[in-house]
Amino acid sequence: MDNIYAQRIEQLRTLMRSKGWDAVIVTGSDPHNSEFPALRWKQVEWLSGFTGEAGDLVITLDHAGLWTDTRYFIQAERQLAGTGITLHKTRVPEQVLIPEWLSIQASGYPEYIVAIDGLCVSSDFADSLEGVCIVSVPDMLDLFRKDRPQIPQTPIFQIEPGESRAEKLKWLREVLVENGCDSILITALDEIAWLLNVRASDIDYNPLVISNLTVSLDSAQWFVLRQDVEDPETEDTLFAVGQDGVEILRYDALPEWIEDNAENCGRMWADRGSLNFHLASLIRGKGIPLSFLESPVRLRKAVKNPVEIQNIKKAHILDGVVMERFLFWLERRIQDGDDVSEWDAAVKLGQLRATIDDYRGDSFETISAFGEDAALPHYVTPKTNAPLIGRNGLYLCDSGGQFLNGTTDITRTVPIGRCSQLEKEDYTLVLKGHIQLAMAVFPAGTAGCQIDALAREPLWRRRRNFGHGTGHGVGYFLGCHEGPQDVRQNFNSTALLPGMVISDEPGIYREGQHGVRHENLLLTVESGANGFGRWLEFEPLTMCHFDTSALLAELLDNDEREWLNAYNGKVRLSLSKYLSPDEQEWLRDKTRAI
Amino acid sequence: MDNIYAQRIEQLRTLMRSKGWDAVIVTGSDPHNSEFPALRWKQVEWLSGFTGEAGDLVITLDHAGLWTDTRYFIQAERQLAGTGITLHKTRVPEQVLIPEWLSIQASGYPEYIVAIDGLCVSSDFADSLEGVCIVSVPDMLDLFRKDRPQIPQTPIFQIEPGESRAEKLKWLREVLVENGCDSILITALDEIAWLLNVRASDIDYNPLVISNLTVSLDSAQWFVLRQDVEDPETEDTLFAVGQDGVEILRYDALPEWIEDNAENCGRMWADRGSLNFHLASLIRGKGIPLSFLESPVRLRKAVKNPVEIQNIKKAHILDGVVMERFLFWLERRIQDGDDVSEWDAAVKLGQLRATIDDYRGDSFETISAFGEDAALPHYVTPKTNAPLIGRNGLYLCDSGGQFLNGTTDITRTVPIGRCSQLEKEDYTLVLKGHIQLAMAVFPAGTAGCQIDALAREPLWRRRRNFGHGTGHGVGYFLGCHEGPQDVRQNFNSTALLPGMVISDEPGIYREGQHGVRHENLLLTVESGANGFGRWLEFEPLTMCHFDTSALLAELLDNDEREWLNAYNGKVRLSLSKYLSPDEQEWLRDKTRAI
Repeated sequence: MDNIYAQRIEQLRTLMRSKGWDAVIVTGSDPHNSEFPALRWKQVEWLSGFTGEAGDLVITLDHAGLWTDTRYFIQAERQLAGTGITLHKTRVPEQVLIPEWLSIQASGYPEYIVAIDGLCVSSDFADSLEGVCIVSVPDMLDLFRKDRPQIPQTPIFQIEPGESRAEKLKWLREVLVENGCDSILITALDEIAWLLNVRASDIDYNPLVISNLTVSLDSAQWFVLRQDVEDPETEDTLFAVGQDGVEILRYDALPEWIEDNAENCGRMWADRGSLNFHLASLIRGKGIPLSFLESPVRLRKAVKNPVEIQNIKKAHILDGVVMERFLFWLERRIQDGDDVSEWDAAVKLGQLRATIDDYRGDSFETISAFGEDAALPHYVTPKTNAPLIGRNGLYLCDSGGQFLNGTTDITRTVPIGRCSQLEKEDYTLVLKGHIQLAMAVFPAGTAGCQIDALAREPLWRRRRNFGHGTGHGVGYFLGCHEGPQDVRQNFNSTALLPGMVISDEPGIYREGQHGVRHENLLLTVESGANGFGRWLEFEPLTMCHFDTSALLAELLDNDEREWLNAYNGKVRLSLSKYLSPDEQEWLRDKTRAI
Repeated sequence: MDNIYAQRIEQLRTLMRSKGWDAVIVTGSDPHNSEFPALRWKQVEWLSGFTGEAGDLVITLDHAGLWTDTRYFIQAERQLAGTGITLHKTRVPEQVLIPEWLSIQASGYPEYIVAIDGLCVSSDFADSLEGVCIVSVPDMLDLFRKDRPQIPQTPIFQIEPGESRAEKLKWLREVLVENGCDSILITALDEIAWLLNVRASDIDYNPLVISNLTVSLDSAQWFVLRQDVEDPETEDTLFAVGQDGVEILRYDALPEWIEDNAENCGRMWADRGSLNFHLASLIRGKGIPLSFLESPVRLRKAVKNPVEIQNIKKAHILDGVVMERFLFWLERRIQDGDDVSEWDAAVKLGQLRATIDDYRGDSFETISAFGEDAALPHYVTPKTNAPLIGRNGLYLCDSGGQFLNGTTDITRTVPIGRCSQLEKEDYTLVLKGHIQLAMAVFPAGTAGCQIDALAREPLWRRRRNFGHGTGHGVGYFLGCHEGPQDVRQNFNSTALLPGMVISDEPGIYREGQHGVRHENLLLTVESGANGFGRWLEFEPLTMCHFDTSALLAELLDNDEREWLNAYNGKVRLSLSKYLSPDEQEWLRDKTRAI
């Protein structure tokens, strides 16, 4: 048994035998149910070698299984080879999810013991386990794992985009009173960052501070400290937060604090989406009355204030300049006959973005994909000189930056050389879909799922579709994905509100051939009121031209053509002054009206 | 106190005092939660004079209130004058619904007694009452009301559209087994009619038999008889149903049957949407384990079988012929300078429809409305010679028939004389919306709420909208409205399935000016499969031309124009052979391509 993962699983089984556990669940979540966990919590990867963003393990004495969805089947088959781990497919009709699978294993046993690391399992998920006896062991794998990374602690700094921390805390306390609550436990990292106007770099691509926060009507506690603070900026930040009446405590002091303060918490609001099982059990064990709901910060944070909106627009201008320079560079390199690999291009784009003053890193890992590579919506670009960007076909680049004044996320599909008729059709139809959503006008109160079809119908009409959502919310120098709104084929009833940012990114993907995606970020804005009610529409935030060379113009309606010409014209007007004469001339040519 | 309704309310209060009740709820529902109740159950109308289709009364010793929604505010204000009844508005932001209102009244009372007629209150609604003590008194108002109509019993006859009663019962029993149930109580009248292949005329516009049905794995009981059966067709029907193993019992014998058979019912499925509080209490009182879910018949009934589909198409051809004759007649009368009232037109249309062999009545009360009258989506045409259809403007006619081979529902808006620019715009935009939905292609699994915006976006883009759903399901010689599918701005996750019928009826309504609605029924059909999945689309069932004289053709896209020309052409081809030479020539002119 040479395989390192098989060895680790056997070590776990030795532990299980000594403890009398029948099964262990290992998840890829952190204690905050973050979309991206820090390395310390990538426990599925450590135990199995599987690096997909979604996957959970169940280990019994005679079976090891990884549950993951359609996006990762091929990758999982490859990465699990030799580990002895079986792939359990989810999001397929015949799926048997973990709770059901475990209850089948447990049938017949008087007591079937399932051990979980309660820190890394959401309370909601644990509640879905039936017919088994749950034992929660925080940091369970540490019982035999010696090299586990610490919780990162990066410098913490402040921003103040239009609303002070004190104003936000005042608002939150009013919400608590309105809802009959006396306190709130905030466990989602982006909510804490928003509420306290703080940022750090504890998690890749996400400028977050790993911490928890409790707020009552007359006090607040931030559970944030790991070791002694030596960084001056962090010291200043903690001092400033303290000045606003927020007590600074150790990250690991929350359980003890709950023990000691249970009687003072009154009715506590806790976030259904991010509360872990360990904390939920503690709170329930102390008999604290719990309002277990979506946190009010989530919706409030999604509605950007006027200062944030102004800043976001500035960030998108500079990001657009970088994108245009990148596209200009790419075109010239190809024209000059240079070999450019997907990775070269991603690196070049990252270097250009890093020239922006307020740049604080990328908002996710750049997808740089040519031809059939682009047919994978979540393609991971190899960090090598291969594969090269070809001479004829479609090149797709999906990237974004974290800036002090906002978060960007943009996809452009670039026609290179000669494109086939099918490539042109797909390119044009996806752009039609993008434009239809971008042009939409809708009544106040409309939810994203109610207008998702506008972006899809131009594709559907020709029997084409894409398997991801059309749009996600985007934070303000926060997560590149944020709720509660989205635009996809679900039944999410959250209304789109003025000030919300969403992405508009339809696509078409053909395995072994090519992929197309066109993505702008859109701001939801007022669009007047009349006898029929109040109206909303979208305003593009992203500023970067759409290439018209591969367009089949006859597939565009007049209003789509007008939108495209107006948008490309606005891009030229907004960006030209930041560009070199060469780049300006090139952009003038690229944005010529069709 | 001359007002008859005020007197009746005082009689009720006398009863309340003698019984010690603090409040009484009177609803407009029947014991089956039917959309249209028989006269016997129009108890809100009897007690208050209010004739709207939705409204509930709450009477206390010092207050009488009617709860109704936006559609009926004006009508309620008028009809309630002098009754002493206060209007409580619903579907407005500041609404206080009955449960909340009652719990406010009840606060401070140790026991606040609310009496309801448990037959006419759904179990779900009763469960929503909190902080009060419920007393259920079936047929409560009969304690002082002497003239109450009997339960109607009209002749019962059989149809067999493609599936026999025995096949349907076999299917139902398989569903029960699959879902771990031993029996089912069916209380929705259209479900009983569908399952037993029976029809009658107990309810206006709805060819239904007032009855209940229980089906277990090895028996079935139809609770249907009121008095001795003398009608030979009914006798034959009951005999035939009995031959299929369904016991024929008295309508009022169900409670006693539940008492006697509780131990044999096993786990019982009961329909969440139509079970009344009285029956639910009986079942719970006997300790029968209950699966309180949507009845499986509801979805199955909505998916029409091939024979039903063939029949429905035939019904729509004949209905289309009637519609064309009607429109021809109307145009000639107006051209001849004759005065035609809205009512005259409705009568004429009814007479024409009655000439069809399989006609069994209208499927709802015809809306015949000119000019500003059409601005009320639920306009009730006065049964008088006034108002007249004018010489210039838009005339809207929404009507439908019940036929042995299907149910129709069609709205046409007819331009008469000269129309204003606004009338033409509204006419054209609504038609754009209609066509966009009619042309839609969508992946299998898509729900109506996910494509509703396709019909609205052409209106929204010009800041216009309509306050009703875009589409509802339609039964097969059953209710003109049926679920579980619909196309509206809700979050109903029911997927549209091949064989489902929906209406496509966007509109624009301008108070004091005019109203436009264009309605066809559409059949959901397969539209191929490819690498992107399985596709569905719609096929128009309704066959009647759309008038092009008021169209602003420049507002139509090419594909919309093509759809319209193809549809009008198909109407001409399908109907001409049934029309007189004059009518043929007229239709040829009306359907000329634009």
